[in-house]
Amino acid sequence: MSKSIKVGVVGATGYAGAELVGALAHHPVFHLEIATSTTEAGSRLSDFYPVLRGTSADIVLSSPDELDPAQLEIVFLAVPHTSAMALVPSLIEGGAKVVDLSADFRLKDAASYEEWYKVPHSAPQYLEQAVYALPELKSDAIAQAQLLACPGCYPTASALACMPLLKGGYAMRNAPIIIDAKSGVSGAGRGATATTHFCNADSALAPYKATTHQHTPEIEQTLSTAAGEPVTVTFVPHLVPMKRGLLSTAYIVCGHSLTLEELHAIYADAYADNPFVQVLPTGTMPSTSAVVGTNNAHIGVAFDQRSKVAVVACAIDNLGKGAALQAIQVANIACGLDQTAGLTVIGQVV
Amino acid sequence: MSKSIKVGVVGATGYAGAELVGALAHHPVFHLEIATSTTEAGSRLSDFYPVLRGTSADIVLSSPDELDPAQLEIVFLAVPHTSAMALVPSLIEGGAKVVDLSADFRLKDAASYEEWYKVPHSAPQYLEQAVYALPELKSDAIAQAQLLACPGCYPTASALACMPLLKGGYAMRNAPIIIDAKSGVSGAGRGATATTHFCNADSALAPYKATTHQHTPEIEQTLSTAAGEPVTVTFVPHLVPMKRGLLSTAYIVCGHSLTLEELHAIYADAYADNPFVQVLPTGTMPSTSAVVGTNNAHIGVAFDQRSKVAVVACAIDNLGKGAALQAIQVANIACGLDQTAGLTVIGQVV
Amino acid sequence: MSKSIKVGVVGATGYAGAELVGALAHHPVFHLEIATSTTEAGSRLSDFYPVLRGTSADIVLSSPDELDPAQLEIVFLAVPHTSAMALVPSLIEGGAKVVDLSADFRLKDAASYEEWYKVPHSAPQYLEQAVYALPELKSDAIAQAQLLACPGCYPTASALACMPLLKGGYAMRNAPIIIDAKSGVSGAGRGATATTHFCNADSALAPYKATTHQHTPEIEQTLSTAAGEPVTVTFVPHLVPMKRGLLSTAYIVCGHSLTLEELHAIYADAYADNPFVQVLPTGTMPSTSAVVGTNNAHIGVAFDQRSKVAVVACAIDNLGKGAALQAIQVANIACGLDQTAGLTVIGQVV
Amino acid sequence: MSKSIKVGVVGATGYAGAELVGALAHHPVFHLEIATSTTEAGSRLSDFYPVLRGTSADIVLSSPDELDPAQLEIVFLAVPHTSAMALVPSLIEGGAKVVDLSADFRLKDAASYEEWYKVPHSAPQYLEQAVYALPELKSDAIAQAQLLACPGCYPTASALACMPLLKGGYAMRNAPIIIDAKSGVSGAGRGATATTHFCNADSALAPYKATTHQHTPEIEQTLSTAAGEPVTVTFVPHLVPMKRGLLSTAYIVCGHSLTLEELHAIYADAYADNPFVQVLPTGTMPSTSAVVGTNNAHIGVAFDQRSKVAVVACAIDNLGKGAALQAIQVANIACGLDQTAGLTVIGQVV
Repeated sequence: MSKSIKVGVVGATGYAGAELVGALAHHPVFHLEIATSTTEAGSRLSDFYPVLRGTSADIVLSSPDELDPAQLEIVFLAVPHTSAMALVPSLIEGGAKVVDLSADFRLKDAASYEEWYKVPHSAPQYLEQAVYALPELKSDAIAQAQLLACPGCYPTASALACMPLLKGGYAMRNAPIIIDAKSGVSGAGRGATATTHFCNADSALAPYKATTHQHTPEIEQTLSTAAGEPVTVTFVPHLVPMKRGLLSTAYIVCGHSLTLEELHAIYADAYADNPFVQVLPTGTMPSTSAVVGTNNAHIGVAFDQRSKVAVVACAIDNLGKGAALQAIQVANIACGLDQTAGLTVIGQVV
Repeated sequence: MSKSIKVGVVGATGYAGAELVGALAHHPVFHLEIATSTTEAGSRLSDFYPVLRGTSADIVLSSPDELDPAQLEIVFLAVPHTSAMALVPSLIEGGAKVVDLSADFRLKDAASYEEWYKVPHSAPQYLEQAVYALPELKSDAIAQAQLLACPGCYPTASALACMPLLKGGYAMRNAPIIIDAKSGVSGAGRGATATTHFCNADSALAPYKATTHQHTPEIEQTLSTAAGEPVTVTFVPHLVPMKRGLLSTAYIVCGHSLTLEELHAIYADAYADNPFVQVLPTGTMPSTSAVVGTNNAHIGVAFDQRSKVAVVACAIDNLGKGAALQAIQVANIACGLDQTAGLTVIGQVV
Repeated sequence: MSKSIKVGVVGATGYAGAELVGALAHHPVFHLEIATSTTEAGSRLSDFYPVLRGTSADIVLSSPDELDPAQLEIVFLAVPHTSAMALVPSLIEGGAKVVDLSADFRLKDAASYEEWYKVPHSAPQYLEQAVYALPELKSDAIAQAQLLACPGCYPTASALACMPLLKGGYAMRNAPIIIDAKSGVSGAGRGATATTHFCNADSALAPYKATTHQHTPEIEQTLSTAAGEPVTVTFVPHLVPMKRGLLSTAYIVCGHSLTLEELHAIYADAYADNPFVQVLPTGTMPSTSAVVGTNNAHIGVAFDQRSKVAVVACAIDNLGKGAALQAIQVANIACGLDQTAGLTVIGQVV
Repeated sequence: MSKSIKVGVVGATGYAGAELVGALAHHPVFHLEIATSTTEAGSRLSDFYPVLRGTSADIVLSSPDELDPAQLEIVFLAVPHTSAMALVPSLIEGGAKVVDLSADFRLKDAASYEEWYKVPHSAPQYLEQAVYALPELKSDAIAQAQLLACPGCYPTASALACMPLLKGGYAMRNAPIIIDAKSGVSGAGRGATATTHFCNADSALAPYKATTHQHTPEIEQTLSTAAGEPVTVTFVPHLVPMKRGLLSTAYIVCGHSLTLEELHAIYADAYADNPFVQVLPTGTMPSTSAVVGTNNAHIGVAFDQRSKVAVVACAIDNLGKGAALQAIQVANIACGLDQTAGLTVIGQVV
């Protein structure tokens, strides 16, 4: 392809930002014009990510001031929540499409944002035009939007696990949906804290923010859209001693019994046209290690005939389909490219 | 204490057996007379567990033929299921108390055993006298029994997480109980398999035997006893990249709302007299690393007011409270000792 | 590039073979016509490596009988030693170039092979024409050869660490060269053994085959070539709790003092034209995690002025530069392609 | 034993301090009267180390002001270097024996201290009376001293690996001694830094402070004492992805050949009376996992006949024999107790 589309990355030193820069180096159309860092402008990205040394992704970081949205078709925001909403107005006015990896424009309801994120929303006027950019939920809207709110890592895996049963009306009404999720430590970010200290994280497994995680309302919003009615989710994440990878195990009480084959068919049909979702054969459950480094989601299903509970597990890479690679998928759709452009990388076999 | 009680361990080369031998070396009353191995008699245990080199636990393994139940007060069986039921009749007739770590005498119903373990029960006549030896469920019966069936690792953590709500009648009837469990790799045993290969297990998380794990009926049996009526559980275990440690996260739909303080009080009261169960303060969830190497169970609670789902997480060491150390606790009770005898070891701080 | 070169992989289910298949899927010129397995013909490679599911690398395995060397330009042998020497004669006679990842044609001296590998060499008549294919040692010969013996993982890292000092005559004659090497567990292969059991490998570090590892004569052969005189190496490998990655730390007594800058310049100059060797700035030492998934070698240097010992550490991916990706580099050279073709993949930033 | 000896721990929240508190809870004679923390007085130690919850080691931390040396027989200093030398004068004047785990009183030469630690020594007048407290080097002096400088983790393993050959005069004069050491991450302390971040430390191996580590002069001081003449060491430590455990692999050029049996006998004889040093059978190399949680050192030997290099590997627990447990061993000797008192704990079999 001879066409080239100019893109920029804001916040390149965080894990999602660096993953984006690395992945964009493979992209056949997107050309990274600028990658910014508030604190590290002038440094090379390989100073923080030595695996980039000697590669085409080893760019010199720019100051945010140097980014001109009028010169870019796409600006990826890989910044913490609250930072994104401070930047979006000028970027949108500047004419760029914004692919926002933060949480700031995911929730349609500013009050819900404030309740769960404990901070007022500073740009609520952009919430309406923002499109929640889970390609497997709705890709048409993504193609038309200027402001694209990429889903969080937990919401991506959780939504992919639950949507087909909810869309199909199989879930028992009023029964709670349980999502027990597990994430690798990179989900906690690049900051050095007691939580991310090797001696605390290695050989340890623990729940955190049980029933209070800020991704809960985002999951509920997506599942309510899928179900066509309000859905409540009990969501409990756990921290797992591995760098990358995320698994959501969803428990959905069904209104009536399904055979395993029926359950499998519901998922296989739902994702038949989605290149990044692989529904595993019956009897096979997904492992996080089979999706790390990719934009793939692996889904496995089981059905407990005794309790009529469907168990659906979805594995993704929290930095891949859960962040940077899904952002590229979204940008591909927004630019009219094939959604797989630049995303056919093959993960490590070991 | 000047008293000494003679004990033996059958199956000392497996993980639970070796852990038993190591722990018995600390015990103030039990004296290990013999430890057997079918295939490794004549070897030292440190040939397989070099950490025992130079310690009092580095015993020479005996042949099973050398074990005389008439000379022992307690025989611990740390053998695979089906092996235990082959040994129990002669040991019981020989006069020893048998503390069985296998699954063979846990289920009261031989038909259920055959359904879940896929093998006929060869000694069903002993099922009635066998006492299911979860000390926090019933310690009086343990004190009287000759045949003690120690709980499995998943059933121990799962029962401790659920019993107080079920005993108290808080669970909504007919709503399924969801138990999402996570175990370290030692739970898969000492055999070298694709599952236990470092390159498959490291940096990977995956469910297995979703809704079909053989510990399911054991959990249901215990919870039904606690509830006073039949209880159905949807049980899904996961393999976690760590050597030891197990967490059961239980999701119980309650009949009406509880405050977090009420929920906490139910657990604190239920375990007030149990030295090995620590109910963590509200807002704190258990980590497996805080129980590894000990007989402790750590329990944390949360309540989702929106769905009336109680979330109770229980962390144990699968080889400690989930196997060898609980077996010693059971033997202590059976011998009239303080249940903490030999079990006050302090786990590694890092 | 419109040109396409047909290649085959023998032994695709091992780690090196599967890594080859995965990497070839990215290659702009090589086209994988066939990948064989003695025991798993008919299966998909993703049955063993689920990360390949849904990718272009998820090929169906063929029987070795189906491979016709006359139809292929390159045959990669990713089989154990002794298997390769059984296959090479017919492949060479069939007209294909053979890129052999095994040890069978690395040592020029059949007697040395028999001494270290404890087995007679069955095809010694091919040893002379075989080219030891370390591109940084000699790439001209690679371009002309039909039989290419790819270096082992330890020899690659060890040779890259030592060659410049030996070529330049800096090493003190008669002083031993010490190489302390460390490898991830994938170096032990896909077989499930006590060594590769997670519970033995995790949280553990140990030397093995100290001074007796079969890679020792290969390292000595390469270093003797570089030095122009016989060189003796004391080589001790260690097993490290990580899946991939290898580090050789070489200690070379020098004939006279060097400043750190002089030492660094020797390495920077030596590898100036080698795209896959990055000599790190003074003060920086390499980490295995910065090369995993790539064909790169990272080298760091230090000089102990008090003892005149140069310390040179070289990190590679044992399955990348140490096996499959170096094999592709070798095949690129052998086919007249740019040596970086298909090898510009960017490693994971986390 | 009815006797009780009052001890205190200064700096209980660091890894070594917490390990000390945990181990003292088992001790038959020492009674922990007070454990202090500069910043966390009033907190429970289990707030930082939840594994201590419910155990006798879960003490309330005191302010340093509350410690009165006149009331204690032993004060353990588990504080960073420079902090110890600020405290030692008043403790010594107060009459307590001081077991210092820091580096402040290990080097006999204040100038060397200042060269390697980059800070002046504030209490050099105590250097002469301080005894370097490696029990396997000299236990008589330990029994008489008031100020005991416990060895560092690397120096302990390195000295144990090298002393017998140096004492016996086997090492070739003027040939450098190479020590390639590897440590788990707890060696970097409890502080959260980029180095200790799980995503940097996991699946990674790298050298650090190559030839410049501050433990180098301490190793040389000990080995020079053993050899009876000045010894130079080239010392390179590496960081390994595991929480605890340390291995020093020493390479010593010998003046003449030794058979493996001769080499083994030198070590077996040297450590015959040392209960915590196990010399492994020929052909066996030590693993860090076999010593973690204990005060043991495991030593394995090999001899490269071709280069006359003896390879001696010594594994210890950096927090055990490398810090807290060795400090208890030292205190035992200083108090006239059996040196194994309270140290017969058995490490985890898995």
